[in-house]
Amino acid sequence: MIEEICKKAKAASVQMVRLSAEQRNMALCKMADALETNVEEILGANVVDVEAAKSRGVKAALLDRLSLDAEKIGNMAKELREVSSLADPVGIVLSSYTHSNGLIIKQIRVPIGVVGVIYESRPNVTSDSAGVCVKSGNAVILRGGSDALQSNLCIGKVLREALQNTDVPIDAIQVVNSPDRKAAEELMSMRQYIDVLIPRGGADLINTVIEKSKIPVIETGTGNCHIYLEEDADLDMATPIIINAKTQRPGVCNAAEKLLINSKIANTYLPKIITELRKYKVEVRGDQKTCQIMPDVKAATEQDWYTEYLDLIISIKIVEDLTEAISHINKYGTKHSEAIITHDAAKASRFLQEIDSAAVYWNASTRFTDGNQFGLGTEIGISTQKLHARGPMSIQHLTTTKHVIEGTGQTRK
Amino acid sequence: MIEEICKKAKAASVQMVRLSAEQRNMALCKMADALETNVEEILGANVVDVEAAKSRGVKAALLDRLSLDAEKIGNMAKELREVSSLADPVGIVLSSYTHSNGLIIKQIRVPIGVVGVIYESRPNVTSDSAGVCVKSGNAVILRGGSDALQSNLCIGKVLREALQNTDVPIDAIQVVNSPDRKAAEELMSMRQYIDVLIPRGGADLINTVIEKSKIPVIETGTGNCHIYLEEDADLDMATPIIINAKTQRPGVCNAAEKLLINSKIANTYLPKIITELRKYKVEVRGDQKTCQIMPDVKAATEQDWYTEYLDLIISIKIVEDLTEAISHINKYGTKHSEAIITHDAAKASRFLQEIDSAAVYWNASTRFTDGNQFGLGTEIGISTQKLHARGPMSIQHLTTTKHVIEGTGQTRK
Repeated sequence: MIEEICKKAKAASVQMVRLSAEQRNMALCKMADALETNVEEILGANVVDVEAAKSRGVKAALLDRLSLDAEKIGNMAKELREVSSLADPVGIVLSSYTHSNGLIIKQIRVPIGVVGVIYESRPNVTSDSAGVCVKSGNAVILRGGSDALQSNLCIGKVLREALQNTDVPIDAIQVVNSPDRKAAEELMSMRQYIDVLIPRGGADLINTVIEKSKIPVIETGTGNCHIYLEEDADLDMATPIIINAKTQRPGVCNAAEKLLINSKIANTYLPKIITELRKYKVEVRGDQKTCQIMPDVKAATEQDWYTEYLDLIISIKIVEDLTEAISHINKYGTKHSEAIITHDAAKASRFLQEIDSAAVYWNASTRFTDGNQFGLGTEIGISTQKLHARGPMSIQHLTTTKHVIEGTGQTRK
Repeated sequence: MIEEICKKAKAASVQMVRLSAEQRNMALCKMADALETNVEEILGANVVDVEAAKSRGVKAALLDRLSLDAEKIGNMAKELREVSSLADPVGIVLSSYTHSNGLIIKQIRVPIGVVGVIYESRPNVTSDSAGVCVKSGNAVILRGGSDALQSNLCIGKVLREALQNTDVPIDAIQVVNSPDRKAAEELMSMRQYIDVLIPRGGADLINTVIEKSKIPVIETGTGNCHIYLEEDADLDMATPIIINAKTQRPGVCNAAEKLLINSKIANTYLPKIITELRKYKVEVRGDQKTCQIMPDVKAATEQDWYTEYLDLIISIKIVEDLTEAISHINKYGTKHSEAIITHDAAKASRFLQEIDSAAVYWNASTRFTDGNQFGLGTEIGISTQKLHARGPMSIQHLTTTKHVIEGTGQTRK
């Protein structure tokens, strides 16, 4: 069954490359309309998922991610209309070269082909992912979590019905109707049909996909972000940055999870920042030195240094110098976003150069790592890998390039 | 042992990012000098590999790839000097954006970090791969075939000794001294240390690496390239293109392996092109229709349509129309290079758009898919995948980007 879905997606992807931006954008608007027209049906399917989840006694946070209401569906429609209004990423000529023999060689941006998305329990990912894939001329195969199966199937059905009155083939959007793990594993082996797999969810999901996939994967999301305070750090600047990075939205990937402090300022600054963090209800954990200075701080474990809390928790480590800070971050971090607070340009420069992360900050909060904040437009995730896309990913990253060569009979000498 | 090598490479990669283009280029020149100074030692190690291979009775082609002589070593040195003279791919500011709050956000080209190269029996790949990695600021771990172990270890030793008098750390170049399969598999699991794996060799090697690697892989090389003749094709143009693409250098990946002919011209053209191909000692295989028209043609099997011959063999298929040609190529091809011969611009346009390959040609030989021919400079392979790099890969593709953000205390609202 999975192979049938893949074949249909491949066939749809070939049709997709013939479409103009107008045809794809028109489809996105019809998809948005259809979500709004079918709110009741989608909510009905969602209730089935939510009731089943409740009867299994799942956590409130999962129920919250799983549950839809009219407003959330309205936002999904709004998101599709916004994507339709973005500049077209397809067909752009990136370079043109004329060979001495007259051949004209152009490099052109084209859709990737078939995109697989593997995600968890948020049904809006179904429509958001379908939207960015249609926009960029790709066919998409959507495989959400079993918790949200009825919601995802219903959203998929509504979006496919909407495509019937457009030039986009309905098989450009397919939802896998199979909640078991084997279906996901089979999907991850379909290298001859699927060009890229995008896992959207927590670290466990992403690691499973990386372990099992034979298809190239674009990793997004995990952010164990660090802030390092040099000995000369302006502490009046540092405190608001730390509070902002930790507390403004603790559940997102660009929130700070770790604070490293140069030992020369630890005695004076630690009590201040810990008092301030606690005002914002942040649980503070610390390394041995931190706990010596502040005995009421809970000791951090080795695992803490690797952990993305996504919560009001921070671990503090005292380091001897910049070198130790860089080594620690490169060892324990997730290559997402890290900041140094210093007035020393040479030290800042070393940090910015040697820290191996997608975004490196000098005297600013890590919370800015975001497509819109970087002036790149709507993002579909933050890539923490180094190939193809690094940092905020836009619809442009759902394209590849092709060399198109026009000749008049040229042969190679 | 493999993990030790990986840790050393990671440490070296952090040092590499501090180096200037001059420091890296100087190291490349010293590496070139050292190859020339140590020709005798390298040839001595190579004789051990060659004798062992002979005693195992390996094929002449493998012996040829394995054997070094003073001229080949001279060419390796020349290659390193050429790489040193290329424009620096590192440090280039790709974009700069000033946030309304004053943050300056730059996207900068940086080295990838640690590159793993897994290859077969050509010892020159050791020095070529080391060269492009040092040039692009990466540390490299080289794992060649067991056939060439002594040669590779000796070349590695000579290159590392050369680095001792430079600013490039010697662990920027490491050769794995372990011929067994387990070492290669362990290497392919070292995702926390190695950023990208590049297999260089035949289809079997590439497929093994894709199957086993947990590290992102850049695929290069396999080329089952097609030429399609439309019914209106200018046959005086077609014949030289076919002969050139098939025979000018049959052992390379951009040589044509398949010829598809529109059925409307098959009766008249088949005898001509087959006679011509045979003049160049090309073995012709054909589908059923081809064999009906030309009974002395050997029947092609299903496997033939998937095969990259890298030899003076071509398989011919007669198709009803452009749609059948496109479907066949997208099904059996390797997404490398394909050409259409026609004067019909609409048909050409459909072919160029719908064929899912790195390079698509209109009225020209597929043999032009090459970094230098495309005006891109020295290439390190032809990528047939769609992420990160597609088509000729240059040293630029051994870099990634980083967002560097400079602030004065900005926090997110």
